[in-house]
Amino acid sequence: MASLLIRDVVVEGRRTNIFCENGRIAAIDDLPRAADSVLEGRGMLAMPPLINSHTHSAMTLFRGNGDDLPLMEWLETKVWPYEQGITEEEVYWGAKLACLEMVKNGIGFFNDMYWDFHAVARAVEETGLRAHLSAVFIDFGDAARAKEQERTNIRLFEEVRQYSDRIRFAVGPHAIYTVTEPALRWAAEFTAEHDIILHTHLSETEQEVRDCHAQHGCSPVEYLHRLGMLSPRLVAAHTIWLSEEDIRLLGEHRVVCAHNPVSNMKLAVNGVYPYSKLKDAGAVTAIATDGAGSNNNLDLLEELKVAALLQKFHNNDPTALPAEEALDMAIENPAHVFGLSGKKLFVGREADILLIDLGKPEMNPPHSLASHLVYSANGSVVDSLVVDGRVLMEHRVVEGEEEIVAKANEAAGRMVARVDETVS
Amino acid sequence: MASLLIRDVVVEGRRTNIFCENGRIAAIDDLPRAADSVLEGRGMLAMPPLINSHTHSAMTLFRGNGDDLPLMEWLETKVWPYEQGITEEEVYWGAKLACLEMVKNGIGFFNDMYWDFHAVARAVEETGLRAHLSAVFIDFGDAARAKEQERTNIRLFEEVRQYSDRIRFAVGPHAIYTVTEPALRWAAEFTAEHDIILHTHLSETEQEVRDCHAQHGCSPVEYLHRLGMLSPRLVAAHTIWLSEEDIRLLGEHRVVCAHNPVSNMKLAVNGVYPYSKLKDAGAVTAIATDGAGSNNNLDLLEELKVAALLQKFHNNDPTALPAEEALDMAIENPAHVFGLSGKKLFVGREADILLIDLGKPEMNPPHSLASHLVYSANGSVVDSLVVDGRVLMEHRVVEGEEEIVAKANEAAGRMVARVDETVS
Repeated sequence: MASLLIRDVVVEGRRTNIFCENGRIAAIDDLPRAADSVLEGRGMLAMPPLINSHTHSAMTLFRGNGDDLPLMEWLETKVWPYEQGITEEEVYWGAKLACLEMVKNGIGFFNDMYWDFHAVARAVEETGLRAHLSAVFIDFGDAARAKEQERTNIRLFEEVRQYSDRIRFAVGPHAIYTVTEPALRWAAEFTAEHDIILHTHLSETEQEVRDCHAQHGCSPVEYLHRLGMLSPRLVAAHTIWLSEEDIRLLGEHRVVCAHNPVSNMKLAVNGVYPYSKLKDAGAVTAIATDGAGSNNNLDLLEELKVAALLQKFHNNDPTALPAEEALDMAIENPAHVFGLSGKKLFVGREADILLIDLGKPEMNPPHSLASHLVYSANGSVVDSLVVDGRVLMEHRVVEGEEEIVAKANEAAGRMVARVDETVS
Repeated sequence: MASLLIRDVVVEGRRTNIFCENGRIAAIDDLPRAADSVLEGRGMLAMPPLINSHTHSAMTLFRGNGDDLPLMEWLETKVWPYEQGITEEEVYWGAKLACLEMVKNGIGFFNDMYWDFHAVARAVEETGLRAHLSAVFIDFGDAARAKEQERTNIRLFEEVRQYSDRIRFAVGPHAIYTVTEPALRWAAEFTAEHDIILHTHLSETEQEVRDCHAQHGCSPVEYLHRLGMLSPRLVAAHTIWLSEEDIRLLGEHRVVCAHNPVSNMKLAVNGVYPYSKLKDAGAVTAIATDGAGSNNNLDLLEELKVAALLQKFHNNDPTALPAEEALDMAIENPAHVFGLSGKKLFVGREADILLIDLGKPEMNPPHSLASHLVYSANGSVVDSLVVDGRVLMEHRVVEGEEEIVAKANEAAGRMVARVDETVS
């Protein structure tokens, strides 16, 4: 594997060089070193890339198609009809567009849930990002379908080996209201046995909590606890409508709670992610974009700002979710569960490195890096992205960008036209 | 004045050219034309620049210095000590940094309130933007100081003529709790007489409303009404804590209400701008960044997204403040009061033109332009900015950018060091 020298870059306040070899950081020092390629880092800060803990990557195809609608109307008139006929090729181009956008926004890893596992895996493989990918596991209460889904998941768990180590398989039961109890138990056991991520939606709406009480006599979190699903390998998206006991359980089991403030506010699910309570209880709080259908971008720096604003606003407290803690939701907190090394750059860790352009007006005056990243910056302050020792974006240029946008637009056009034809 | 041809650009869905001459749009057509300079618009959409209806431009110097603090602690330990000793030169460089950042974010006009009128005016003049600038009118209940402020304002109203037509003088009484009643009456009369903007903060906090009732026996809006300040030339920043009668009065007098959702959420002033009620009542609702001290950037596209999210969240209604209406808050609604021509590009209007890069991943697939601008884009989708027929940014390049950032950083450093020396 090729070596890379990132030259004259700021690492924790000091100008130095970073030498990467065999996908690892091999040195951080000022010694002269020969490398296969050089990335100029002058005026840049080096830090680990951002981690997107919950998204539906290919839903970039839905961006801007059906905003400002009530949730059910959006799902019934847009999302579901489109997904009905969506092809593997369309998912592939949607995922490519998402990967492109994430690279441009400095996201080095994402945790995904979508149809057509191999389409998304191919997109990730080609782009060079890291990802944990789950096929959507939905059985709608049908035992035969549940069994078929289990077989599919077992097969995909084997087939993921055809890709590089950057891509891991995760089991992604959609939610408690779309997956049967035996299938959820199976998912818990399978992921425990193979030590892989279990990825689901949890307590997103009040309705979900009410229905769960009616059907199972307990909250969604208690229900997952009963099924053995709570663990530090569970990534639970949303976790908004929680009781004190739910929060205690999520903390005790060190569940990774993926917070999607933009999607939550845009869809008006109303409740607010109980950040400080979850943190105090011991849960891992992570930031995420959700899919582009309900965001509508994949910009984690913007997401951090909205997260901090929402906590301050909701708690009537300007000190809630300060910048340093917010930033941890994008790197330090979720790193461990996804097999990454956290917010410090050090010799021996994976060669995943983000360069931030410190010369941008919005990054100045240089009073506070964390504050600027959370409150002032957006993804456009990212100058370059290195993942696994490979440069995915160099000074804002990503190879093949124009083609990806053009092909994704064609795919979206076909997807929409198919539904419109059916309707008319 | 030089002529400019913007070539092969999209205007309302059609590829064409825009020819600017003498600061006006002279033609929108495909005829061959000789021009002094050419701006390549291929792959770009042309639209009018964004309007920032309330900011304190030089407060870029405060960016990231004192976040996550309670409002009074921030003011007492940061803002006021810094402002105590701030020099004209420092304000100038702070305003230059703000102008640079606004240019990069596609803002062609801003309505400002800050100390050192001429420092800000010089910055605007050099940058090429348009602005209505007010000195901060504060008398803290001191009649002599009020008189002195009146004289200063009369003088500045004369002195503004030394600048180009792009810069207008406005009278900016800070707020009802920092300015005496005779001075407020004077401001109302002076601005009416000269047909200029009256710019103030209004009903930002619950405390302000409570104090006003205790002192004047009415709400802040009713108090301004009593003083003859309500008119279509009044730009009132915040307008959050409003009664039904307040809303009726603001609507009846077609007051321009400048909404600053990021600042409001970040400082946790708690209440929410009553968008639909103000709109229905007939008030002009405009978007604004407030100062960079409490935002922390000057990005109106981000601000629009937060505005829409906050309305949806607060009203528990995903259909609240849809994208098209949000976008109007940045162009169409406030244009008239500031002497601009609104959201349509047409022959004869001022040559203020923004180019949006339609090739950016976050602007695709091209399902909805308004949705993409509000929910997906940020200021970095702006490729070029033309104001008064002059190109202020060409393909993201602004002349002198590095120097402005460096000098603003030096100015901020001096400002902070002065206070730290005093403290120690």
